[in-house]
Amino acid sequence: MDSDYGFPRELSDLQKKRTLYQPEIPPCLEGTTVRVEFGGGTTAADPAGAHVISQAFPHTYGQPLAHFLRRTSKVPNAQIITEHPSIRVGVVFSGRQSPGGHNVIWGLYNALKVHNTNSVLLGFVGGTEGLFAQKILKITDEVLSSYKNQGGYDLLGRTVDQIRTIEQVNAAKAACEALKLDGLVIIGGVTSNTDAAQLAETFADSKCPTKVVGVPVTLNGDLRNQFVEANVGFDTICKVNSQLISNVCTDALSAEKYYYFIRLMGRKASHVALECALQSHPNLVIFGEEVTASKLTLFDITNQISNAVQARAELEKYHGVVLIPEGLVESIPELYALLQEIHALHGQGISAEKISTHLSPWASALFEFLPPFIRKQLLLHPESDDSAQLSQIETEKLLAHLVENEMKKRTKEGTYKGKKFNAICHFFGYQARGSLPSKFDCDYAYVLGHICYHILAAGLNGYMATVTNLKSPVNKWKCGAAPITAMMTVKRWSRGPGISPIGKPAVHPASVDLKGKAYELLRRNASGFLLDDLYRNPGPLQFDADGADAKTFTLSVEDHDYMGRIKLLQEYLDKVKNIVQPGCSQEVLKAALSAMASVSDILSVLSSSSNSPGLQ
Amino acid sequence: MDSDYGFPRELSDLQKKRTLYQPEIPPCLEGTTVRVEFGGGTTAADPAGAHVISQAFPHTYGQPLAHFLRRTSKVPNAQIITEHPSIRVGVVFSGRQSPGGHNVIWGLYNALKVHNTNSVLLGFVGGTEGLFAQKILKITDEVLSSYKNQGGYDLLGRTVDQIRTIEQVNAAKAACEALKLDGLVIIGGVTSNTDAAQLAETFADSKCPTKVVGVPVTLNGDLRNQFVEANVGFDTICKVNSQLISNVCTDALSAEKYYYFIRLMGRKASHVALECALQSHPNLVIFGEEVTASKLTLFDITNQISNAVQARAELEKYHGVVLIPEGLVESIPELYALLQEIHALHGQGISAEKISTHLSPWASALFEFLPPFIRKQLLLHPESDDSAQLSQIETEKLLAHLVENEMKKRTKEGTYKGKKFNAICHFFGYQARGSLPSKFDCDYAYVLGHICYHILAAGLNGYMATVTNLKSPVNKWKCGAAPITAMMTVKRWSRGPGISPIGKPAVHPASVDLKGKAYELLRRNASGFLLDDLYRNPGPLQFDADGADAKTFTLSVEDHDYMGRIKLLQEYLDKVKNIVQPGCSQEVLKAALSAMASVSDILSVLSSSSNSPGLQ
Repeated sequence: MDSDYGFPRELSDLQKKRTLYQPEIPPCLEGTTVRVEFGGGTTAADPAGAHVISQAFPHTYGQPLAHFLRRTSKVPNAQIITEHPSIRVGVVFSGRQSPGGHNVIWGLYNALKVHNTNSVLLGFVGGTEGLFAQKILKITDEVLSSYKNQGGYDLLGRTVDQIRTIEQVNAAKAACEALKLDGLVIIGGVTSNTDAAQLAETFADSKCPTKVVGVPVTLNGDLRNQFVEANVGFDTICKVNSQLISNVCTDALSAEKYYYFIRLMGRKASHVALECALQSHPNLVIFGEEVTASKLTLFDITNQISNAVQARAELEKYHGVVLIPEGLVESIPELYALLQEIHALHGQGISAEKISTHLSPWASALFEFLPPFIRKQLLLHPESDDSAQLSQIETEKLLAHLVENEMKKRTKEGTYKGKKFNAICHFFGYQARGSLPSKFDCDYAYVLGHICYHILAAGLNGYMATVTNLKSPVNKWKCGAAPITAMMTVKRWSRGPGISPIGKPAVHPASVDLKGKAYELLRRNASGFLLDDLYRNPGPLQFDADGADAKTFTLSVEDHDYMGRIKLLQEYLDKVKNIVQPGCSQEVLKAALSAMASVSDILSVLSSSSNSPGLQ
Repeated sequence: MDSDYGFPRELSDLQKKRTLYQPEIPPCLEGTTVRVEFGGGTTAADPAGAHVISQAFPHTYGQPLAHFLRRTSKVPNAQIITEHPSIRVGVVFSGRQSPGGHNVIWGLYNALKVHNTNSVLLGFVGGTEGLFAQKILKITDEVLSSYKNQGGYDLLGRTVDQIRTIEQVNAAKAACEALKLDGLVIIGGVTSNTDAAQLAETFADSKCPTKVVGVPVTLNGDLRNQFVEANVGFDTICKVNSQLISNVCTDALSAEKYYYFIRLMGRKASHVALECALQSHPNLVIFGEEVTASKLTLFDITNQISNAVQARAELEKYHGVVLIPEGLVESIPELYALLQEIHALHGQGISAEKISTHLSPWASALFEFLPPFIRKQLLLHPESDDSAQLSQIETEKLLAHLVENEMKKRTKEGTYKGKKFNAICHFFGYQARGSLPSKFDCDYAYVLGHICYHILAAGLNGYMATVTNLKSPVNKWKCGAAPITAMMTVKRWSRGPGISPIGKPAVHPASVDLKGKAYELLRRNASGFLLDDLYRNPGPLQFDADGADAKTFTLSVEDHDYMGRIKLLQEYLDKVKNIVQPGCSQEVLKAALSAMASVSDILSVLSSSSNSPGLQ
């Protein structure tokens, strides 16, 4: 046990006050009886990959959805669990810290103790490496006291995290067996939950009794699908970043002489950039998903921004704010191709200093064209998931540099007659990631922690804790669990330096849906934002009174409750079954057959199309 | 009139709610009667410079302090002003934006209207350039409606600001005369208030009836002296920066692999860094004032940080947070000398590209030793006040680079055996400067605005609005005014690229007092902060409930109320006068003479010493 972790620490007044905040739980989690209703068996998000996934996960594929029910709900076939033997559960932070993570542990701890005070929760110290090394911290009220509703992952810490190699999986299994764990809860994002699913399958296959549960905690907001509406941390990150972006907008408008280029943390997808743009109305956002969809080159993007600068100059505006998602660099085709070559050379063991001499003539020409600072960053060793070190590549500086050159060129040619273009660059990531979590993230994480216990009580393995109807107040939230395999797709072509080789199933990372309502809302306002400086400042994160209960646009404008609608459908099917029982009239049977044949045909056609909206 | 300014705009919910916040005013500003009591005539902060200052400001030097009194206070010789003819006042933002600036205008507007609804307030659009060009925006309730309690200076905007050359001063005078202004209020920091004093003197000399009033608004927090306890914007900036620093600390502690080097905006002095360190407890702060006092070289500082990294590595800690004030670069002797040479060459009209070939051999050697990115930044043209472009010089990257090299060297030599040193650099400035102002800054600015009216009603010229006893709630605040000349010193030796040549009086910029209580508090905790990670997160700026009323450490730990104590002293002197009136006994007279001779001797000795604490 590492003596650095879990110690009480000095807190500021606001931190102390936050430790006293007690999140609610929805009625379905109250009391000491767990009532679970199972839906139909699940398929994979990607029908074409279903076969591959079912083969890779023979034990954990196709399991049913689970819904946890309130005491008063009348569902005849719900499983009611009133006996709660004491259990031993392990919990581990895997992957990058995200605000609210601590509350998952607190919620889980409370649920365990509510159902049996003898149950034990063990935290693994230092992420998955602590799991492999069986470095544990026993979670107690005292340990939790100064970490409730607090940011960071410092209660347990984390390292570079993965559970993927045979050695790692075996070490995890050995730890679970040695510590006699009934359950292992893995708190993380897309990659960590893919690992969780794999671990669950391995445990099931090898008769290891430990059940594995995943929790969607990632600031990137890309662990979204039919079952998962939001990720813990995303709300906080977007609020803190939006505050900072808005402050910069106000500054731009006051000084009227700078363009601010702001890169935002959020990995490959542009969810954080989209949400922040909706909250703060900067002049321009370059979405990786747009660049991919339109195959925009570095020169196209440079021109797009330069044209915006020029259009604003014609209105006598020489300031502005441009958002750049950190994943953009991998969406730009030529930079992506260059990174692919560099990573391949890394894979061959060629040192960074020598890589430039091994590049293809084409890649070499591009490499030499780029300014030295960015060359050095592109040469960095790829991350553990094989993607570029996005947080270290200053795409915003590259673009500012290229736009500056372009504006100089236009000035020389006489096509631009405005003042000199001045850019100031920022990267907003670490300063938001360590924030105190918003009320929403405190509540959401705490409830997810509770659900983890319910999943274990129901004896489920390879599931992720889910909450739907998150747009509504906590007492209307619907709690459930979905098999992680149902969120998987199979990579059938290589589009980027991904975590897994072609053909390996993985939890599907959601990118910004260019047909979605949130993106549509931004598009509709884009020209106003670009030219009219409609800057909006959501202000600093508030814990009391006004602003404390604001939810993200991403969550609010989209239709959700997929799981609710799945339940509704099942009710219709049950109704049909009840009506068309042996003894019903010929006419009723005929009508039912005809109607169902038609439904069946339509759905067959729809599901064979690969354009499944769940895959965007 | 520029159509871009003063227009109502879309606000977020929190912004809207903030516009409804109505700051209190202290009892002494209530009602429609202005009651002013004058203290004794003032001298200059720097006794040795008093003669030079009195010669430079024959009309405005030596004026008395003014105290504004509540209706109920019983002061026999107070001047009571009940008649309030309508007046015309101009207001201008001068210098960098600081959160709360808008509320000075609001407070001034309300005070004007309370005393005479026909009075007129004109805002100059685009800073001092708008003043020279007579570009005005008439301030109305409607114009103010969406700017109350909001950040930035975008109601009026600002440019590169100064009122210094004969042309500028004449243009300002022409504007005041053309617009028939009774008063001109200048909102700004040290430099702008020096300009305000000069303008007041010029106006008095040339019989221009416009009275000039200064308001201490600067995020740098360096416009502090016996009369001025705090500056508008400092509280907000320190809170927002401390939130971000703390978030980064939490992040460091969670990931345990990075050193974060954070440079903080705040110009030459390290007030922002000191306050933020007291709020957030980072591992290390390098104060410009310490570097100056101990004459530390770049290598000394590199070694100091490297030793800290090494000491932490011995405790198995490979993360940390280091604060660097942006002014540090001018405190490091060799970098300062290099900057002096570069600025002198700029002054000779030598272009940036050619400067390196004109440097002295010594400066040239240092220049070549520095990494390319910093060379380019050092070559930037100096600011309008002749100092380096501090916000553009990435001292944090330079230090991170040098520490990295040093740790590599130590590793090679075998004196350092820890893990690789990894640094991530940040500059926190613009993202804090545009913030919504804290409650304190909203109140303080609003009250100062009110005081400006009282100053004008009392017919004073060349004064700065002041509030003392700021540690207490608003209803205990003491309002007054002090001649700006009383805050001046005369530069007798050249210590840096300053705004004024030797011998020219200027408002004295306060640097961090290395004997002060705030610094002492930090020093006392420094070794704990360095090694024990006592990180503290004050959390995001709150407007309601907990945390909304927290005040800065800088304000709270220091003894203030100089003006109150000056008044107390006068009361003692009056008492003595009353007791020792003609007719008193020989014994009483003898005792009084003996005591007063002794007081007089002690004070003579003290004032001739140049170690005046007001000058630190």
